[in-house]
Amino acid sequence: MFISFEGPDGSGKSTQIEALAAELRAAGREVVTVREPGGTPAGEKIRAILLGEGGTVPVDPRADALLFNASRAQLVADVIEPALARGAIVIADRFADSTLAYQGYGSGLPLDALRAIIRFATAGRIPDLTLLLDLDAGHGLARKSGRGRTRFEEGFDAAFHERVAAGFRALAAAEPTRWHLLDASAERGHLAAQISTIVRGALAATR
Amino acid sequence: MFISFEGPDGSGKSTQIEALAAELRAAGREVVTVREPGGTPAGEKIRAILLGEGGTVPVDPRADALLFNASRAQLVADVIEPALARGAIVIADRFADSTLAYQGYGSGLPLDALRAIIRFATAGRIPDLTLLLDLDAGHGLARKSGRGRTRFEEGFDAAFHERVAAGFRALAAAEPTRWHLLDASAERGHLAAQISTIVRGALAATR
Repeated sequence: MFISFEGPDGSGKSTQIEALAAELRAAGREVVTVREPGGTPAGEKIRAILLGEGGTVPVDPRADALLFNASRAQLVADVIEPALARGAIVIADRFADSTLAYQGYGSGLPLDALRAIIRFATAGRIPDLTLLLDLDAGHGLARKSGRGRTRFEEGFDAAFHERVAAGFRALAAAEPTRWHLLDASAERGHLAAQISTIVRGALAATR
Repeated sequence: MFISFEGPDGSGKSTQIEALAAELRAAGREVVTVREPGGTPAGEKIRAILLGEGGTVPVDPRADALLFNASRAQLVADVIEPALARGAIVIADRFADSTLAYQGYGSGLPLDALRAIIRFATAGRIPDLTLLLDLDAGHGLARKSGRGRTRFEEGFDAAFHERVAAGFRALAAAEPTRWHLLDASAERGHLAAQISTIVRGALAATR
């Protein structure tokens, strides 16, 4: 089973992924967690470019989208597919839908072209389950302090983040079987319980 | 005018580009030469990953194709389009056709998907003129010594380079107006004279 978490920065994805992974491991499952961009030697080098580590360089939105997908292609080939093949549960902190939300809905690049690039990068691999931690864009940015904020949070205005949030909701609405929309402003333990119920239900359905 | 040179490593592209650029500059034209991957700050960082500078990391063929196109997107946006807009002649040492030849014909990735990625990366920009320095693949590799050979020359077998060479010829045959196929084993000065005639003819036709 391949589970992705999506949503704006500051929506609590990493906290919820930690809690879910701990619960599944306690139940005896192998869990592999990945985050984008990165997760492989090539992917970490790509991450350094995208996040401006070792000096920010200008990155065109099209180059952005292609770099994210290069990192993704390496991650799918080297980590995600082998893990799924041996029966592990893979939990991704962002996956291809982030490209559609940020570079598509956010930066205005054509969704059709982005989908073709994603199909190529992932060799068609799609999450079985996608959990959208939905949050008012302004709220998410306010929650996360200046420390640890990335180029994607610093470099874009509020209207960009509104388009991204609306994009995530549109993607969720278009594929209601795969996506589950959750209110990320809910209390942390309450949210974890909701996620646990959804994932346990999905796992039971695949047996 | 946008001119690209294609062909295997060791076919003499850089020598011929230097000669052509010198001739056009002597005739009073602004000439911008570019090489792939690289040519921008982001592109040089991508080049370092692709060529294994600072330590080789495994790169999946799909990630390869996406990284080359990320570098290309940045180069088109920051260098090629501005140069063309001010009337300069741009000469590229490899462009999008190398992706089709190496990752498509060479590595066997689907040409249709690669073409979609290229259209995205280049925002539709296509060379006006492409000069193929055609050479028996084995000959090209023999000509270039161990020093300066890249991962793309070291890491692939003779059959790969044969497929690449055949791919270039197929691309040239499919678009005979844009492509000019030249025998790269010809004497250097003779080849330069042929290239000069083709380029001067194309420049005269665009006046």
